Amino acid sequence: MLDVLKIKEDFPVLKTTPHGKKLIYFDNAATTQKPTYVIDAVSKYYKEYNANVYRSPHYLSALSTEAYEEARDAVRKFINARSSESIVFTRNATESINLVAYTWGLKHIGEGDVIVLTIAEHHSNILPWQMVAEKKGAKLRYVHLDEDLRLDLDEFKDILKEGNVKLVALQHSSNVLGIINPVYDIVNLSHENGAKVLIDGAQSIPNMKIDVEKLGCDFYAFSGHKMMAPMGIGVLYIKEDLLSDIPPFLSGGEMIDEVFEDHSTFAPSPLKFEAGTPNVEGAYGLMKAIEYIEKIGLENILEHEQELTEYALEKLTKIDYVKLYGPKGAKDRTGIISFNVENVHPHDVATILDQDGIAVRSGHHCCQPLMRYLGVPATVRASFYVYNDKSEVDAFVDGLKDVRKWFR
Amino acid sequence: MLDVLKIKEDFPVLKTTPHGKKLIYFDNAATTQKPTYVIDAVSKYYKEYNANVYRSPHYLSALSTEAYEEARDAVRKFINARSSESIVFTRNATESINLVAYTWGLKHIGEGDVIVLTIAEHHSNILPWQMVAEKKGAKLRYVHLDEDLRLDLDEFKDILKEGNVKLVALQHSSNVLGIINPVYDIVNLSHENGAKVLIDGAQSIPNMKIDVEKLGCDFYAFSGHKMMAPMGIGVLYIKEDLLSDIPPFLSGGEMIDEVFEDHSTFAPSPLKFEAGTPNVEGAYGLMKAIEYIEKIGLENILEHEQELTEYALEKLTKIDYVKLYGPKGAKDRTGIISFNVENVHPHDVATILDQDGIAVRSGHHCCQPLMRYLGVPATVRASFYVYNDKSEVDAFVDGLKDVRKWFR
Repeated sequence: MLDVLKIKEDFPVLKTTPHGKKLIYFDNAATTQKPTYVIDAVSKYYKEYNANVYRSPHYLSALSTEAYEEARDAVRKFINARSSESIVFTRNATESINLVAYTWGLKHIGEGDVIVLTIAEHHSNILPWQMVAEKKGAKLRYVHLDEDLRLDLDEFKDILKEGNVKLVALQHSSNVLGIINPVYDIVNLSHENGAKVLIDGAQSIPNMKIDVEKLGCDFYAFSGHKMMAPMGIGVLYIKEDLLSDIPPFLSGGEMIDEVFEDHSTFAPSPLKFEAGTPNVEGAYGLMKAIEYIEKIGLENILEHEQELTEYALEKLTKIDYVKLYGPKGAKDRTGIISFNVENVHPHDVATILDQDGIAVRSGHHCCQPLMRYLGVPATVRASFYVYNDKSEVDAFVDGLKDVRKWFR
Repeated sequence: MLDVLKIKEDFPVLKTTPHGKKLIYFDNAATTQKPTYVIDAVSKYYKEYNANVYRSPHYLSALSTEAYEEARDAVRKFINARSSESIVFTRNATESINLVAYTWGLKHIGEGDVIVLTIAEHHSNILPWQMVAEKKGAKLRYVHLDEDLRLDLDEFKDILKEGNVKLVALQHSSNVLGIINPVYDIVNLSHENGAKVLIDGAQSIPNMKIDVEKLGCDFYAFSGHKMMAPMGIGVLYIKEDLLSDIPPFLSGGEMIDEVFEDHSTFAPSPLKFEAGTPNVEGAYGLMKAIEYIEKIGLENILEHEQELTEYALEKLTKIDYVKLYGPKGAKDRTGIISFNVENVHPHDVATILDQDGIAVRSGHHCCQPLMRYLGVPATVRASFYVYNDKSEVDAFVDGLKDVRKWFR
């Protein structure tokens, strides 16, 4: 059990009072708040370590290079990757996925090849593959959901059987429904059928222990800002044996070996994929966020999210004008609940909750194909994290009752 | 005249003591240090404003969206762009240039077209064009330097006369030699010949007033971290009338209009070019850096850099074992001096200076073609900024004398 009151103290933003109300922050799937431990580390970086990295013998440059590479190693350990060459720093999960699409994708996916996605993917894991499909004449196939809105594994197996599947790209867990996909099964099935697997871990990295060695996926993408790290830093894990067969993406800076007027040769990974001055602050902040998360314990985080989800679902199912999307219980899901209030536009629900200091998100959540599949233009989404508690869920449910009153 | 002692107080890192010595930071062309004004703003962002931007009606999201768009407008004003649609946030100047290469470049540059660079370009303004040239069958042409190591304008004019020049991509000022290129002439000549112009402003944005309207360039790229802003934020200015004819680059997140299973439509610029959760912290920090710079005044900054350069050059030319690269005086150059010490490897020079707390950079400075042109594998580079003063230059020159003693 988390000591939420103690954890709350670590997050200065939770002391702010929107519209004069105590802030209840339920927009964690969009971005999490940052603990003082991370905020102060960012300041410390600029006050004591800041310099550009690599190739310079001066003291500060050595410190910043060390900070940057320590951060890379911290990420490696955090997801249990074998080699730090597999850890590429990007801006965010979106860039990580685009990097794979533009490099491995454009090189290895050809005409008639099939790219398998799920209908619940975030736009960031759809559009890059539309680009690859269009440029290379490949086909996109979508796996749909069962009546609980969980992935239809049978449909997935059928698509694999049809052959030519080169890549399966899917989210570890959904940013709208909270469902956790059976990624171990999916990786095994895909590999048996000769397909590579990219996992969008943006929503799972904040609350689940990721072990890329055990999972065996080929690519794993995530963002720092959704796991209490600063904005502007993300990670792409690339399986070691693929590294040599992926061309560089952005070019310039330390990613080179030799540059001639008419051609260039490149450094090995990870530098090959990191063009220009990297975000050392972001990497350092990410390492500090990992330290903070590990003090709490990832198992405790998921358990806490599921407990809040169970509690909220119990209350919400009792309200007949609330339509919930997703499985009935909190099993195999993260702390995300999507819903609508009958006859009230999701945007209005969010706006009224905001008046009570409750921050939820409304919209398509960058999942328009899923919205179309659900038959709604938008949902309201409440997403929980380590600093949320049951009293906040109570206030949120009371707020929904107010919404309804307001619109009746 | 700058009150350097007062300015120094604003930079906490200058109080650190590498190897027990007072820090003299002469590696500003690689990255500048950050004033408390910016460091505290970054903390404040996370303590009071942090949320994901756009499309959500909650209070914090409104604050962070406002911070992000205010920052965009601050950049717009800073470089006198007409429209904030022209201001795209990137990670750094390198990404900005790559964005142009991958989008405008791959769309508009074709077989037989000529891309003109200068031999003094940073790798970040060479490699993306090698990629375009290779993919599209275009030709790269390099403008060389005169005996003062300034751009050979006659050679440039000759290349333009030969025809088919589609793009001229050059640095506003050199990160090795400090020379400021005659960009107004170059833009005019290029446009007269039907070529677009991309300017790499990484080294000029920290110390010169940039007016993109007056300059008339088509693209202007720069990084925040070289102008006292946080790492992980950069800018690409795109001339307004080009915006509609440039396809998107990275995809996902808020850069869309509508996403269907098999195709998507895109938002207008700047969102079209900003995939995934943006670095709002970085943008906010960049705005604060602009405010800090404007309090000092850009004219004062360049004047100060030139004064230190003049002073250092005067002293260095008197030392017969120091070989300087670049024009004799400080006219039309920024605060960058590249040199070598006879019979001492540049890396050793930097290492010994570091023992005295003096941070300079040694290496090819991401300019291998220039190094080859100069006939050296590497140089030592001292680069000055607002918090440096003449007493530091004195210490640096004394340090060079020690270097020589050490190696004799």
